Amino acid sequence: MSFDSLQEKIIQKKNPAVAGLDPRPEQIPPHILKEAYGRYGETLEGAAQAVWQFNQGLMDALCDVVPAVKPQAAYYERLGWHGMAVLERTIAYAKEKGLFVIADIKRGDIGSTAQAYADAWLGETQVGGAAHAAFGVDCVTLNGYMGSDTVEPFVETCKRYGKCLFLLAKTSNPGSGELQNLTAGEKKVYQLLGDMAEKLGADTQGKYGYGLAGAVTGATYPEELSELRARLPHTFFLVPGYGAQGGTAQDVQHAFDNHGRGAIVNASRSIMCAWQKTGRDGLDYQEAARAAAEEMRDAIGAYVTIR
Amino acid sequence: MSFDSLQEKIIQKKNPAVAGLDPRPEQIPPHILKEAYGRYGETLEGAAQAVWQFNQGLMDALCDVVPAVKPQAAYYERLGWHGMAVLERTIAYAKEKGLFVIADIKRGDIGSTAQAYADAWLGETQVGGAAHAAFGVDCVTLNGYMGSDTVEPFVETCKRYGKCLFLLAKTSNPGSGELQNLTAGEKKVYQLLGDMAEKLGADTQGKYGYGLAGAVTGATYPEELSELRARLPHTFFLVPGYGAQGGTAQDVQHAFDNHGRGAIVNASRSIMCAWQKTGRDGLDYQEAARAAAEEMRDAIGAYVTIR
Repeated sequence: MSFDSLQEKIIQKKNPAVAGLDPRPEQIPPHILKEAYGRYGETLEGAAQAVWQFNQGLMDALCDVVPAVKPQAAYYERLGWHGMAVLERTIAYAKEKGLFVIADIKRGDIGSTAQAYADAWLGETQVGGAAHAAFGVDCVTLNGYMGSDTVEPFVETCKRYGKCLFLLAKTSNPGSGELQNLTAGEKKVYQLLGDMAEKLGADTQGKYGYGLAGAVTGATYPEELSELRARLPHTFFLVPGYGAQGGTAQDVQHAFDNHGRGAIVNASRSIMCAWQKTGRDGLDYQEAARAAAEEMRDAIGAYVTIR
Repeated sequence: MSFDSLQEKIIQKKNPAVAGLDPRPEQIPPHILKEAYGRYGETLEGAAQAVWQFNQGLMDALCDVVPAVKPQAAYYERLGWHGMAVLERTIAYAKEKGLFVIADIKRGDIGSTAQAYADAWLGETQVGGAAHAAFGVDCVTLNGYMGSDTVEPFVETCKRYGKCLFLLAKTSNPGSGELQNLTAGEKKVYQLLGDMAEKLGADTQGKYGYGLAGAVTGATYPEELSELRARLPHTFFLVPGYGAQGGTAQDVQHAFDNHGRGAIVNASRSIMCAWQKTGRDGLDYQEAARAAAEEMRDAIGAYVTIR
């Protein structure tokens, strides 16, 4: 699905926030871990089973509050193929629940390999005369360090399947400026990557004015966020760094256009781990996650009116 | 295993080449596909089974000619979790055969997520009281666009488990110069990433003088290759772009130090698809791959003497 579809879900739920699904074992309630380990042992399969139970419960609790989920591939890869199988199940379940799915994969590679990644995540894999969607998400994050020729296969696949992507521009981590804030040629590096997104998405703007190539720009750098919003009028933003990393509702308001559109803010730990603050050992993890998601929605809503 | 171990295998086999395992279905001999599809259907499982048969046959044929293999994650991800399971099997089999394994994953992410990737590929995943290696390769490729703080978790994991990594510097694709050849601050961007590798690997030099952080620099840009060799005396190089992409033995000679050490050259299609040139429908894919690997070894050997 395209950014039109994401924007519609955001408008419908009046919530421009995506719930990260980055399940670390220490963030999963003890009763879920206990049951999974009891059944499958302290194995990668056991851990994957716990992740699945947790993700499913979170999505049940969140699906009418948030428009989208963002599984982070690393937390599934660390469980080997069992983790990847649970990632497939998680994606399928999210779609059943009407959630838009952004796979946070940050991939990037040369032409034919980029095409293989695009097939894997956004398109389909041809097997003899049949075609199968391996992960089949709506949107991915990509790293454009290797050049726009390495992003183009993803763009073509997005066009063909009606999907979209986010290119890393200014990331939320403390060291992001080391390369991204240098001036290279006439621009800063993060501007260059932002411009690459704007250019790759040209002529694909949907009803809300956004092309299929979005950009990642962190809540932890509100100045760059404002500047990129003005610079890239057709580029949808994914804004990480809210909550645990320090970004606030006040910071992220600059990501949105005058209609309160064009951006989605990620929160992972603050929603997934909300149960750790209620003193009930995670038995209330669903209610806690839902309350945290509503709180975040309202906090952003104080600064951003979505029309 | 560290670059010492890779260098030893290179010296032992007198071959500084790594065989890429990037199996696209059209590159797998028809008799292997036919058998796998016959048994599992034209499914992702069937395709994964064909990949496994092909990889195993290739490694049987190549294991006393090449020191290392480099599976490219994209070609496994496109087969979903079935593909990832075959990737695990491929890695385990390569290790049984004494091959050094470089996973070409080009990952990169912020701190805690980078740690999850490092656990997945180089270290171990803690599950309750147990620790499991999910993929357990010797070495990975990484993308440092997000800054050195995002590479450090991998460096720490390499130190702990005696492993190593390659950071993308100057990649082999046509558009790599778009960002990488710009002058950012006082350096070109690819120099900056090369310097990041040299710095991250400082104080970890093994018996051949190379630290745990290597760099990727393409055979298709021999000038940058020579320049980086002189600039980064303690940085081991992974050199893609040989063969199908246009890099020659003459080009790659510049990657090596005066002892013919410090670099490994990748070839994927020229070895995997050698059977397509012999007119025997792939029934001879093992002999063809082995002959192509020997030819490549000898071609590089005409320019580089490994001591």
